Amino acid sequence: MDAVAPAQDPEVLRRSCSRFLSLDHRLDPSVALGELAAYAARLGGKADQYGEGDLANMLEQRVAELLGKPAALFLPSGTMAQMIALRILTGRSGCRRVAMHPRAHFEEYEARAYQELHGLTATRFGSYDALPTLADLETLLGEPVGAVTLEMPLRRLGCLLHSWDELTAIAQRVRAARVPLHLDGARLWESLPFYDRPYAEIAALFDTVYVAFDKGLGGLAGAMLAGDAEFVAEARIWRRRAGGRMLRMFPYLLSALQALEERLPLMSEFHAKACAIARTLGTLTGVLITPNPPHANAFLVTLPGKPAAARQARLDIARETGLWLFDDLVDCPVQGLVSFEISVRGATLELEDQEIERLLDDFRRRCAASV
Amino acid sequence: MDAVAPAQDPEVLRRSCSRFLSLDHRLDPSVALGELAAYAARLGGKADQYGEGDLANMLEQRVAELLGKPAALFLPSGTMAQMIALRILTGRSGCRRVAMHPRAHFEEYEARAYQELHGLTATRFGSYDALPTLADLETLLGEPVGAVTLEMPLRRLGCLLHSWDELTAIAQRVRAARVPLHLDGARLWESLPFYDRPYAEIAALFDTVYVAFDKGLGGLAGAMLAGDAEFVAEARIWRRRAGGRMLRMFPYLLSALQALEERLPLMSEFHAKACAIARTLGTLTGVLITPNPPHANAFLVTLPGKPAAARQARLDIARETGLWLFDDLVDCPVQGLVSFEISVRGATLELEDQEIERLLDDFRRRCAASV
Repeated sequence: MDAVAPAQDPEVLRRSCSRFLSLDHRLDPSVALGELAAYAARLGGKADQYGEGDLANMLEQRVAELLGKPAALFLPSGTMAQMIALRILTGRSGCRRVAMHPRAHFEEYEARAYQELHGLTATRFGSYDALPTLADLETLLGEPVGAVTLEMPLRRLGCLLHSWDELTAIAQRVRAARVPLHLDGARLWESLPFYDRPYAEIAALFDTVYVAFDKGLGGLAGAMLAGDAEFVAEARIWRRRAGGRMLRMFPYLLSALQALEERLPLMSEFHAKACAIARTLGTLTGVLITPNPPHANAFLVTLPGKPAAARQARLDIARETGLWLFDDLVDCPVQGLVSFEISVRGATLELEDQEIERLLDDFRRRCAASV
Repeated sequence: MDAVAPAQDPEVLRRSCSRFLSLDHRLDPSVALGELAAYAARLGGKADQYGEGDLANMLEQRVAELLGKPAALFLPSGTMAQMIALRILTGRSGCRRVAMHPRAHFEEYEARAYQELHGLTATRFGSYDALPTLADLETLLGEPVGAVTLEMPLRRLGCLLHSWDELTAIAQRVRAARVPLHLDGARLWESLPFYDRPYAEIAALFDTVYVAFDKGLGGLAGAMLAGDAEFVAEARIWRRRAGGRMLRMFPYLLSALQALEERLPLMSEFHAKACAIARTLGTLTGVLITPNPPHANAFLVTLPGKPAAARQARLDIARETGLWLFDDLVDCPVQGLVSFEISVRGATLELEDQEIERLLDDFRRRCAASV
């Protein structure tokens, strides 16, 4: 079914690669479904009816337990989960103003659903280049706020995480102000090695928590909202309203259960690999790593170059070596520098640090030649 | 994984049944996923990335073609599809008032998403017991309307369909008023035998069309919006906003493609079976069929009885015969009568009309004894 396309087409080139620096291998639908069928046979469980049934119960109980929350609800996507959380929390507090970081997923990836779909407004929690601070919090608490959110790790700044002391101080201050605190924990699983505490101890700082089954867990899709029983009961109504109540969700439920079983134990390995790669790349002339060492499984690489040349170098290296470096550059406001993200997942583990160093050094030279 | 439960638990009893008057057999997740894996291998195609890719293109082109519309977009659920359509159409017309039937899916099954999520208001298009008429339309056009909707067939009234003349007259009047006309075609596939015209000829009466891949097509879940290219491009933004952009949608895309291939040709058989059952049951004393003959693959059966007795009779018959009559009664405001829906799908075709008649006569007697 492949259309004939010029070798220069990035997507065609990407599909021709066998190795990937970031993320996971491309899935083959038939293979993925076959593996899921085998997992389903091993696990047992009936088909759900609109997300209700034993598979959903198992998954929701498992996540509630991991996060130490009374209840949890499966939703098809993180955007839907997050919007439902904000809507419920602002409904409870009677204030539509939500504190969020200017580089949060809410602002960057959701087509401003919080404004367009839910009529909420955002008060800026933190500056564009740093994690939100206690001082930022004091400033915004100068007017009523319906909910405070934290994205942890903050992906667009290189998957940054607060220190435990900063995090608990922020949470305590929000509590003292009697404002609900919500965690965008799309990559919470990946943050475990940094804190080295049980998920439940982290989640206990928040009233409500969203976690994802794609991202680091490598599941097909899907998200979970966890919180108190009343919150989850209300979220169930909003799931219907939002159109998240699909007749059969069992492919996603099974994929999520399998991901928790097989991928969750890999988070420390992902983090260690990220640290090893960052250490190696940090020795290359002119290469900056943000943060160094990485907090979670992902970080930003910044080096001298022009965007067009960097994009071309990535394609040339893919053609020459069969290794795909990154999908696209990420924003970098400093002219003369380019940035991209390395996100360690399954496919990254198959690469030797030395080979990564050699390829990135090659990439660095090609970029430098453009400046 | 089954909990031990009393035999009286309707869900346990239902799961123990091997035959079903309505709907389809219960799915086994492992078997269903295995079959889907085999279909995926036959079809080819790559895993989608957030609903983009060759499988999505195939499905969207196929449906756009069937409906004679320039473009189409896959969405995880009908509720999401419908809300997005209303939001775009009312945005275009600059009026948030939508004409909908009081028994429409919008009012009954979506937790009032059109109000709660999108801030739209509803003007009543038709009375509680009949399809909307041209006279109803004239009345509501006495004030500005942002969109007019038709649910076809109107499920809660027994899957009623307008005659072709009524339908075209309504569509023409809406067009003349320069108001966009949207079709809730969740069961449009099932309406083909009634009109005996190509889908595209029906869809041509409407600006935008929603169709479903579950319901009669028996797919896992999922919906499609079809319309002009600008509408679909805008729907793509709203899909992201609504949280309908899951990382991997291929299980649903494949299931929908398979359903179109294998189940779409069965719609006439479903309708013929519905007519045969209705003919048979219509001869039983005191049994009323709405509509008679059925317009689509489903109809309502009404007979003398009390709700509690009818529910009990359904359970007793399930235990005695292994045949499941219906999930629950549907509303019937006339005291002393009870109603339920028969919806012909795969499992219904395996039952002989005579056996259905015998069982329903038995059911009728048990209900009558309660009055």
